[in-house]
Amino acid sequence: MRGYFITFEGGEGSGKSSILKSAEQKLADLGLDVLSTREPGGIEIAEKIREIILNPEHTAMDARTEALLYAAARRQHLTEKVLPALKEGKIILCDRFVDSSLAYQGFARKLGIEEVFTINKFAIQDLMPDKTLFFDIEPKKGLERIAANKDRERNRLDLETIQFHEDVYEAYQMLVSKFPDRIQVINADQSFEQVESEAVNAIAHFLKNG
Amino acid sequence: MRGYFITFEGGEGSGKSSILKSAEQKLADLGLDVLSTREPGGIEIAEKIREIILNPEHTAMDARTEALLYAAARRQHLTEKVLPALKEGKIILCDRFVDSSLAYQGFARKLGIEEVFTINKFAIQDLMPDKTLFFDIEPKKGLERIAANKDRERNRLDLETIQFHEDVYEAYQMLVSKFPDRIQVINADQSFEQVESEAVNAIAHFLKNG
Repeated sequence: MRGYFITFEGGEGSGKSSILKSAEQKLADLGLDVLSTREPGGIEIAEKIREIILNPEHTAMDARTEALLYAAARRQHLTEKVLPALKEGKIILCDRFVDSSLAYQGFARKLGIEEVFTINKFAIQDLMPDKTLFFDIEPKKGLERIAANKDRERNRLDLETIQFHEDVYEAYQMLVSKFPDRIQVINADQSFEQVESEAVNAIAHFLKNG
Repeated sequence: MRGYFITFEGGEGSGKSSILKSAEQKLADLGLDVLSTREPGGIEIAEKIREIILNPEHTAMDARTEALLYAAARRQHLTEKVLPALKEGKIILCDRFVDSSLAYQGFARKLGIEEVFTINKFAIQDLMPDKTLFFDIEPKKGLERIAANKDRERNRLDLETIQFHEDVYEAYQMLVSKFPDRIQVINADQSFEQVESEAVNAIAHFLKNG
């Protein structure tokens, strides 16, 4: 028995993280064995790597160092959490995975999508997601959503320029073109209920028909 | 003005680290502007990465995670210390570099030399050493030297099997064949003075004749 590995991708304010938690519940209600996770996923080694990446004192952090650290944390999360759950036949919903590195480090930080993909292939070997949902919303609208949400904690990426977020968006469009079978576009510029419904239906359809 | 980047490589007990400190002094005495270093080289981000790698509690550390972390620490040490020194025209003597990862992680840990080279190319871009000295001693003799030295602190690698160290040695032989122009073999199975003399002469010859 082998489960399914499904990833959620999108820019800031796309709502994917909230949808993921809600979709997990809906799929569990259907009797499916679901596990939701996100890097570093409570894995001690990966958490420590993430601390280095996010430490605001580390202003000397080189972009390539950062990309290698993300790949290292990804590898550890994969071997300790994702692969064992896959073997148990679970359906794994993972908030961000390789595509995020390709869009953020590869394209927006200008390291090169192919180059960043190369180090990520080393990290994940052949384990690409079975299915990826891309939550599609214009960067400007996504950032407006974040600005309107007073409860949301600001992170380093929220401080980037609008151009950075537009580059991320452009990169995701390229990835959708590059992996049309794997990546399904979800219109995230709708009400929460509509986006959630579209996402759950997409997953259910994939699980039924592949 | 651009300096020279010279790396010292070899198995455990090859004496390369002691020779490096001594060679630094000899070259400085000749009026050369020398900097000796080793990863993580006092670079805060790289030191923190190294702490994760060496923490004995991290028994769940995957070999690919480890290789990516070494590459990340290497990148940061390179950008913060090696590249600025090179620009200042210094002669840098570095204790271990990419070849160590190829021998230890690529071959002895069986990740594949080419695969480990790929992530290291991402880390170092085109900055391969100008010259590399390989301190050649049979693994069994090197380990005997370590055993005889009561002052030396034991590390994780000292606990590996003799087979592991023989694999590392075999990998270095392969690297010498692969990069005959860059890697020069130093006979490390001689007295300290003899090895030091051979190493200093090799560096002086390289600096004079390229």
